Amino acid sequence: MELRFCTWQEVAAYLERSRAIIIPIGSTEQHGPNGLIGTDALCPETLGRALGGKLEALVAPTISVGMAQHHLGFAGSITLRPSTLLAVLQDTVNSLVRHGFDSFYFLNGHGGNIATVSAAFSEIYAQTSLQPGSHNRPSIRCKLTNWWDAPGVKALCGELFGDQDGGHATCSEISLTQYAYPDSIKTAEMTPAKAPYGPIYDAEDYRRRFPDGRIGSNPTLANPEAGEKIFETALAGLETDYKTFVANGARTP
Amino acid sequence: MELRFCTWQEVAAYLERSRAIIIPIGSTEQHGPNGLIGTDALCPETLGRALGGKLEALVAPTISVGMAQHHLGFAGSITLRPSTLLAVLQDTVNSLVRHGFDSFYFLNGHGGNIATVSAAFSEIYAQTSLQPGSHNRPSIRCKLTNWWDAPGVKALCGELFGDQDGGHATCSEISLTQYAYPDSIKTAEMTPAKAPYGPIYDAEDYRRRFPDGRIGSNPTLANPEAGEKIFETALAGLETDYKTFVANGARTP
Amino acid sequence: MELRFCTWQEVAAYLERSRAIIIPIGSTEQHGPNGLIGTDALCPETLGRALGGKLEALVAPTISVGMAQHHLGFAGSITLRPSTLLAVLQDTVNSLVRHGFDSFYFLNGHGGNIATVSAAFSEIYAQTSLQPGSHNRPSIRCKLTNWWDAPGVKALCGELFGDQDGGHATCSEISLTQYAYPDSIKTAEMTPAKAPYGPIYDAEDYRRRFPDGRIGSNPTLANPEAGEKIFETALAGLETDYKTFVANGARTP
Amino acid sequence: MELRFCTWQEVAAYLERSRAIIIPIGSTEQHGPNGLIGTDALCPETLGRALGGKLEALVAPTISVGMAQHHLGFAGSITLRPSTLLAVLQDTVNSLVRHGFDSFYFLNGHGGNIATVSAAFSEIYAQTSLQPGSHNRPSIRCKLTNWWDAPGVKALCGELFGDQDGGHATCSEISLTQYAYPDSIKTAEMTPAKAPYGPIYDAEDYRRRFPDGRIGSNPTLANPEAGEKIFETALAGLETDYKTFVANGARTP
Amino acid sequence: MELRFCTWQEVAAYLERSRAIIIPIGSTEQHGPNGLIGTDALCPETLGRALGGKLEALVAPTISVGMAQHHLGFAGSITLRPSTLLAVLQDTVNSLVRHGFDSFYFLNGHGGNIATVSAAFSEIYAQTSLQPGSHNRPSIRCKLTNWWDAPGVKALCGELFGDQDGGHATCSEISLTQYAYPDSIKTAEMTPAKAPYGPIYDAEDYRRRFPDGRIGSNPTLANPEAGEKIFETALAGLETDYKTFVANGARTP
Amino acid sequence: MELRFCTWQEVAAYLERSRAIIIPIGSTEQHGPNGLIGTDALCPETLGRALGGKLEALVAPTISVGMAQHHLGFAGSITLRPSTLLAVLQDTVNSLVRHGFDSFYFLNGHGGNIATVSAAFSEIYAQTSLQPGSHNRPSIRCKLTNWWDAPGVKALCGELFGDQDGGHATCSEISLTQYAYPDSIKTAEMTPAKAPYGPIYDAEDYRRRFPDGRIGSNPTLANPEAGEKIFETALAGLETDYKTFVANGARTP
Repeated sequence: MELRFCTWQEVAAYLERSRAIIIPIGSTEQHGPNGLIGTDALCPETLGRALGGKLEALVAPTISVGMAQHHLGFAGSITLRPSTLLAVLQDTVNSLVRHGFDSFYFLNGHGGNIATVSAAFSEIYAQTSLQPGSHNRPSIRCKLTNWWDAPGVKALCGELFGDQDGGHATCSEISLTQYAYPDSIKTAEMTPAKAPYGPIYDAEDYRRRFPDGRIGSNPTLANPEAGEKIFETALAGLETDYKTFVANGARTP
Repeated sequence: MELRFCTWQEVAAYLERSRAIIIPIGSTEQHGPNGLIGTDALCPETLGRALGGKLEALVAPTISVGMAQHHLGFAGSITLRPSTLLAVLQDTVNSLVRHGFDSFYFLNGHGGNIATVSAAFSEIYAQTSLQPGSHNRPSIRCKLTNWWDAPGVKALCGELFGDQDGGHATCSEISLTQYAYPDSIKTAEMTPAKAPYGPIYDAEDYRRRFPDGRIGSNPTLANPEAGEKIFETALAGLETDYKTFVANGARTP
Repeated sequence: MELRFCTWQEVAAYLERSRAIIIPIGSTEQHGPNGLIGTDALCPETLGRALGGKLEALVAPTISVGMAQHHLGFAGSITLRPSTLLAVLQDTVNSLVRHGFDSFYFLNGHGGNIATVSAAFSEIYAQTSLQPGSHNRPSIRCKLTNWWDAPGVKALCGELFGDQDGGHATCSEISLTQYAYPDSIKTAEMTPAKAPYGPIYDAEDYRRRFPDGRIGSNPTLANPEAGEKIFETALAGLETDYKTFVANGARTP
Repeated sequence: MELRFCTWQEVAAYLERSRAIIIPIGSTEQHGPNGLIGTDALCPETLGRALGGKLEALVAPTISVGMAQHHLGFAGSITLRPSTLLAVLQDTVNSLVRHGFDSFYFLNGHGGNIATVSAAFSEIYAQTSLQPGSHNRPSIRCKLTNWWDAPGVKALCGELFGDQDGGHATCSEISLTQYAYPDSIKTAEMTPAKAPYGPIYDAEDYRRRFPDGRIGSNPTLANPEAGEKIFETALAGLETDYKTFVANGARTP
Repeated sequence: MELRFCTWQEVAAYLERSRAIIIPIGSTEQHGPNGLIGTDALCPETLGRALGGKLEALVAPTISVGMAQHHLGFAGSITLRPSTLLAVLQDTVNSLVRHGFDSFYFLNGHGGNIATVSAAFSEIYAQTSLQPGSHNRPSIRCKLTNWWDAPGVKALCGELFGDQDGGHATCSEISLTQYAYPDSIKTAEMTPAKAPYGPIYDAEDYRRRFPDGRIGSNPTLANPEAGEKIFETALAGLETDYKTFVANGARTP
Repeated sequence: MELRFCTWQEVAAYLERSRAIIIPIGSTEQHGPNGLIGTDALCPETLGRALGGKLEALVAPTISVGMAQHHLGFAGSITLRPSTLLAVLQDTVNSLVRHGFDSFYFLNGHGGNIATVSAAFSEIYAQTSLQPGSHNRPSIRCKLTNWWDAPGVKALCGELFGDQDGGHATCSEISLTQYAYPDSIKTAEMTPAKAPYGPIYDAEDYRRRFPDGRIGSNPTLANPEAGEKIFETALAGLETDYKTFVANGARTP
C-alpha cells in the first residue's frame, strides 16, 4: 500500500485498523564507479514497498535525499544539512500525527543518516516533553531500522562476499539495486580491487582518502543473483522487526 | 537520464556538456474521492522523466512532499512548513552548485508550492547578493515551471473538460495520473458533481468549505485517454520552455 | 484610524465592533532614475490610510522593508531575506491574534513580496493546522491584495500610459507617489525611453539586464494628475475588496 | 534626507561623502491612557528626521515594531520576538553594507529594544569575527543611542516633571509626541495619578502589576510646550553624539 | 546544593520547599596578560556555589561559555552567537519549568552577556505571552544579577583600586579568581600600566584598540586578599538580592 | 592544562606546538536512586582533565548540558534540543578554528549525545563543503570518543559487574563518580535490584518503562575502588586514542 497511490478515504480506512506507517529514507550520493547515485534510496524503497505489500502496511513516499555532506566531492551528490533534515522529519511526523498515526517505522538505506535521524526523533519528542501543558498530545514512537541490520542479512552478506563487502558502495547494496533495477547495471574497472578503509571527516578529506568514492569494498563482485538473495532475507527479517515494533507499542485504534 | 540511475562519473561527463538539471517537485496531499494522494508528485515526475529522456537532460529525484498545510484536514496529507521547504531547496541547489550546475529547472505539480519555491529562489540568491565579499560564487539561475502552464496545455484541458476541470483535484491532473498509472485508477461517486470554489485559508477552514477535498472540479470526467493527450501536449510545451531557459542563460561549460 | 495614533483603550473599543485590520506592506528599493526608493511602501501606506479613514478601519504601521534581494545592486535598496520576513509576519499576526483580531488585510505595494507573504500565511496557519492539540486557537484569515489589482486600476493605467507603464518603476506607481508627495517629484533623463523586459534572477544579473533599474517602463510619463486618478480609482476598488473580505469571514465579535 | 524620498542615484552620490546612516527604531505598544501606541516609534522618527535634515545625513525608514512582549496584555501592542528582531537588523545592516555604508546609528525610542538591539550588533559582528576567511569584508560599526540619553535631556525632564516623569508612558515622551502630532493629543483621567514602579516579567504579570499600562509616571502633566523644549534639547544633544560617532570611526570614503 | 551532586529524588524533595534555582553564567574569553580565560565563569560559579551553600538553594551547572564575539581576536576565547545563547537559555529554563521551577536567578559574571540574556528572557516569556491558548503554563520569572552589582561591591572595589579597577580584566575580578584559585595566580608585565578605554565593536576593532585585551584596568594591582574581601561583600549582597527576588514572586509550592 | 586557567598568551604559545584540544561533553540528567545528576558530565570532565594533564594537552570547559529529552520525566534533568546543541557545537568549534585549532577531540560521557554530536560534526563540515568559494578555510577534524569505549574499559567493567552493569545509571559510571567525588556517594535501596531493559522513546514513555530512572543496572554494586580501576584503565586507553587521532591528521603548526 503506497500512500501516493491511495485516496484520502483509503488512508482514513487504514487508520481504523493501524496507526503505523513505513517511511523509506535514503540518500542521493556517489556509490563508486559501478554503484548508482540513488542506491541508498532505492534499497529501502524497494524493500519498504515489498514489506508494505506483504503486510498491507502503508508506505510513505521515500525521502530520497539525506545527510551526505562527506560525498559532496563527487559529482551528483546532494545533501541536506542535519538541521534541514531535522525539520523535514519533524514536519513529516507532525503531519501524520494529526491524522492519527502514532508509530513511525523509518526504513533506512544510508549509514550517514543514522545520527541525524536519531537526533530528529529527540527533537520531535522534545516538542511535547520539553514543555509543560503539552500533554494533550498522545505519545508517539519513532524507530529507525537499517535494512542491513535486519536479522540474517549480515550473515548472508558475509557468506556472499566475505571481507570484500566493504563499508560504502558495498557489494551487497549494489547487488540489491542490480536485482531491483536490472536495466541499470553498470560495469567499471577499479583500482585497487578492494578500496581502503579510514575515518570520515569533511568532503575534501573524504575525496583525498577515497579517490573513487568506495570504502573497503570490491563491488565488481556485485551481481543481481546475490541481490535477490539479499532481498528475500532482508524482507523476511524486516517483517519480524516491523511486527515487533507495532505489537509492542501502538495504541489500539 | 535520471540522476538516481547514474554513477558519479556519468554526472561528471554530463557536466562537460550541460550545467542544467530538471528537478520535479510535487506534493503529498488529498486529491478528492478519486484522485491519488501522490498526484502532484506523479505528474511532474512523469513529465520530467520523459523530458529528460527526450533531451538527454539530467533529472534529479522528485521532491515528493511540498507545502500542503491547507490539506491537513484530510488523512494522508503531509506538509513541509514553508521555512522547511526553503531550507530543503537551498541545500539541494547549493549541493549541485558545488558540482558546477548553474541552471535549475524546477518542474512543479502543485499550485501551493509556487509561493514558497519562489521565495526559496530569493533566499538562495540572497546568500550571494546580500553580502559583500561573496562574489567569487558564479551566478546561478532558478526557474519554476508549472506543468499546466506549458504552452498548449490549458487550451487542451478547456477543450477536454470545459468548466468542469476545476482548481484542485482537477480532471486534467487526475487524467494524467490515470494515463501514467493505469493500475491505480479509482472510482468514486461525488456530490455535487462539480465542487465549489472559494478562498483558501487554514486546514480547518478548507475542510469546512470543501468537504471532500475538491475545488471546482468534476473529476468523474477524468480518463486515461485524456491523460495521454495532456501528456503529449505538456511534454512538447515543456521541451520548448526548457530549451529557452537553458539557451538564454547557462554559461558555456 | 492609524494604530500608531490610538491609545490601547481605543483599540479595545474598536475590537468591540471589528476584528479586522489593514496592514500596508511595501519595500525599500530602487525605482529607476526618477522613482523614489520608498515608492512601494508609500503607495500602500497612502492608500491604506485613506481606506482606513473612509471605513473607520484600523491601519497598522507600514511594513516598509520587504523582499528586495534582486535590487541590491542599486544603492539604498534594503531587503529582508524571505525567512526573516516570514518571522516578521508571523510575530505581527500572532501579536494581534492575542488581542482578538482574526482578519488580516495586507495591502501590498511590491510584486517581489507576493511569494514570501503568501508563504508566510501558510507558515502562520501551520502553527495550528500542523499539530494536534492546538485547536483551542480560533481560525484566522489572512489576505494579500496588491493595490494595482484593485478593480479598475489596470484599465485606468492602460488608458493613461498604454504599453509604457511597464513592470518595475512603472508610470502608475511613480505618478501615485508624485500625487501623494508633490515635494519629492524627481526629473531625470532616461535611455532608452522605455526600459527592456526580462526575467529576474539575482542582484548582479538584474543590474546587468536592467542598467538603470527600470523594467519595461517609461516613467518620464509619470505625473501627479495621473496619480490622483489612480488614487481615486484604487481607493474605490479597495473599499469593495476589503468589505467583501471582512463580510465573508470575520467572526461576529 | 529621508532614504524613502531619494532615488538610488542620490544615495550613490551621498556615499561619495558619507558612509553613515541614521536608523530610527521604536515600538508599537500601549502607552497608558493618554499615550499613543506609536509613541516609541514617533519620537525617534521625529528626532531622526530632524537630525538628518540638519546634518544632511541619510535617514532610513523607521523600524516601527520592536521588542514589546511585556505589553501584549494591552490591545494593539505588537512585538517581534528577540530572535526575529535579530534577523531584521542583520538583514538591514547587511543590505546597506553591500552599498558601502559602514557606520550605523540606531536612534532608539524604546527601552525594551536595548537588549535585543545590542545582541543583534554582536550577531552581526559575529558573521565576520566568528569565522576565518571572512576578512575580506571591511569592519563596520553599529551604535545605539536612546534619544532620552542625549546630553541635556534628562536634566530638562527632571526640571519639567520632577519625580512624575516615570519609567513607561513618561511625561516626556508623551509631551514629545504631543508637540510633533498636535492633532493626536489625548486626554484621560488616571488613578492613581502617579503609577507604581516594579519589575518587568511576562505580559500577564505586567498587566497585573501595571493595570493601565503606565510605570511610575503621571502623564496628565504632559504638554506640547514641554515637548518642544525636549525636542530642541534632544536634537542638539543628538547632533553632538552623531558627529562624534561618525568622526571617530568611519573610513574615509 | 549543587544540582550535579544531587539525585533526582533530592531535587524532587527540594521542590517541595522551593521553586527557585541559581544558575551561574559566565564566559570563556581572554582577560589580559594576568587574567584567566575562565575568569567570568569562575567568579559567578564560586559565588553561586557559596550562596547556594549558605541558603540551601539549588545551584545549576555553570554556563561557562557566553557571548564573547568581541574577544575572538585573542587565542582561546570562545563565543556563542547571541541566537545560540538564546536557544540554550530557552531550553534550560523550559527543562526546569517542567519539573516545577518558576524562579530563575541567573548570577552573571560577564558584561557582554547582559544584552543577550535579557533578550532571552523576553524570548522565553514570548513563548506564552505571544500566543493565545497557552495560558495553561504558569507564569515564570527570570532575573539577571551581575555579581559586581551586589550591594556594597562597587564601593569596596573603589576603595581597593580607585580608578585602576577598569572595565575588562578588572582588578576586582582577577583578585576574586586569585582568592578562589590561588594555584593559578599569574604574573605579567603590562604596558601601559593602566589600559585605555574605548567603545566596543567587532573582534578586529577590539584587538586594535586594546592590544593586550584589557580595558581601563591595571590588574597588576590584583591580589588574593582583596579577592577575599570582595568575595565576602559580594556574597552578603547576593544573599539579600536572592531572598528579595524569591520572596516577591515565587508561588507557594 | 585547563583552558579556563590559562591566559590568552599561554594559549597562543600552546598553538605553536599543537592544534588539538580536548572538549569534555556530558549531560545533566537523572541517574537513578544513587547516581548523581551530574554523572555524565563529571566522568568525561575527570578523565579529560587527567588526560590533558598527562599529555600537556589543552582541555576546554566541560559542556555540562547535553541531549537528555528522554530524562525530562525526572526532577532536575535538563536538556538542550538537538537543534540547540548543534548550534552550540558549531559556535564552539568555529571560535576555536579562528585561533588555529584544527583537531577537536570530544570526550563524551552520555550515550544520548552521540547522535546529535555526530550530526553537529556534519553540520560544521557542511559550512565549508556545501558551498563553493569557501575553500580558503583549512580542513578541520572532529572526533567523538565515549570514555567507556576506550580500549580495555568494557572488559574491565564486565569483570567487575558482569551483567549488572546495565545501560543507564550503570555501576561503572557511578563507581567512577564515587572515586572522583567521594564526598557525594549516595546510598539508596532499589527494587528490583537490576532494572529492566527496553527501548527509549519520549520522556513520558521512559518514566513508565523505567520508574526509578535506571536501565538494566544494579548500581548498589558501585564502589569507589572499582571507580579507581575504571579511571586508570580508561585514562590509559584514552591516551592511546587521543595520540592516534592527533598523529593521523593534525596539520603541522
